Amino acid sequence: MLLEFTMYPTDKGESVSEYVARSIEIINASRLPYQLTPMGTIIEGEWDELMAVVKKCHERMNKDCNRISCSIKIDWRKGKTGQLKQKIQSIEKRLGKPISK
Amino acid sequence: MLLEFTMYPTDKGESVSEYVARSIEIINASRLPYQLTPMGTIIEGEWDELMAVVKKCHERMNKDCNRISCSIKIDWRKGKTGQLKQKIQSIEKRLGKPISK
Amino acid sequence: MLLEFTMYPTDKGESVSEYVARSIEIINASRLPYQLTPMGTIIEGEWDELMAVVKKCHERMNKDCNRISCSIKIDWRKGKTGQLKQKIQSIEKRLGKPISK
Amino acid sequence: MLLEFTMYPTDKGESVSEYVARSIEIINASRLPYQLTPMGTIIEGEWDELMAVVKKCHERMNKDCNRISCSIKIDWRKGKTGQLKQKIQSIEKRLGKPISK
Repeated sequence: MLLEFTMYPTDKGESVSEYVARSIEIINASRLPYQLTPMGTIIEGEWDELMAVVKKCHERMNKDCNRISCSIKIDWRKGKTGQLKQKIQSIEKRLGKPISK
Repeated sequence: MLLEFTMYPTDKGESVSEYVARSIEIINASRLPYQLTPMGTIIEGEWDELMAVVKKCHERMNKDCNRISCSIKIDWRKGKTGQLKQKIQSIEKRLGKPISK
Repeated sequence: MLLEFTMYPTDKGESVSEYVARSIEIINASRLPYQLTPMGTIIEGEWDELMAVVKKCHERMNKDCNRISCSIKIDWRKGKTGQLKQKIQSIEKRLGKPISK
Repeated sequence: MLLEFTMYPTDKGESVSEYVARSIEIINASRLPYQLTPMGTIIEGEWDELMAVVKKCHERMNKDCNRISCSIKIDWRKGKTGQLKQKIQSIEKRLGKPISK
């Protein structure tokens, strides 16, 4: 299961990297495979372990923030693992070439 | 805390109301206040009780679906309850009139 | 086509109803059918007219805001109109009862 | 402005990489900087050019699909460009180390 989430305080002004960095520390400590993107973090795992990480990030953030926005997107596919890498590879295979960055 | 979520199978063709209806039964049974919209369901409660409902809906759906898309949006505000009604009222107050539907 | 969107400044502190109210004025002036929910606004129309409204809201907001978060969800179904009302009715029909609020 | 979007047909069964690959071709042809992630595509540009790309992808997809789900997330920050790379760098700076993948 792939879970992408974005979480930030909306009462701390324009720059929120200080708060996002804390979440990355928590995600990193979970030992789950993840990828940071410019718009969020994508983690792979099972429902309970993924949601435990998201909850931990929220609990850390709500200690000193008054309003928090969080959006989560989950893509679940029966019997599939290793999707963090395979989804892009499957598109590249279709295109017959690696995707430029 | 307000949680909006949308969950549907993507391997069951164009119409998915049969699967969405099951989720509504689960949400309804939770006794949490909720509002169904044309794009999802908004529930009010605490983190654990809200996530338990979403998980239950997913577990019911993955029994007979092979791929499920789920998106969740959470708006948390320190010390606030009754937001399911108050958020719209606060906008109406700003506008000085009820919002037309 | 149904389009749900949520747009708010993230550099204006905890309460943003002042800014959201301006968007509602713009949406209302568009004459498109819409529904305000506690988590966003759902509008029905064609691609260009919907996107014109969202853009107008963004242009109004970025006049005096430095950072704006916007999320949009679009549900398009070939040949369907009146979905703002019919999607919920289709679920109610499945359930055999109106949905409690 | 960074725009992340995910678009896929929901009436074409479990695997949709064929349809997603077409969108990547369109995005690639736009010459805008982008990054494909396992959960969507992030493009950087101005409002009109970004929305033109998303619309083109939708028009290509609705030629032979009956139902399409699309979600868009926009992060706009006054006077900022190069955010596709700088957002992650700003987190890494906070953490004092590169982010493991």
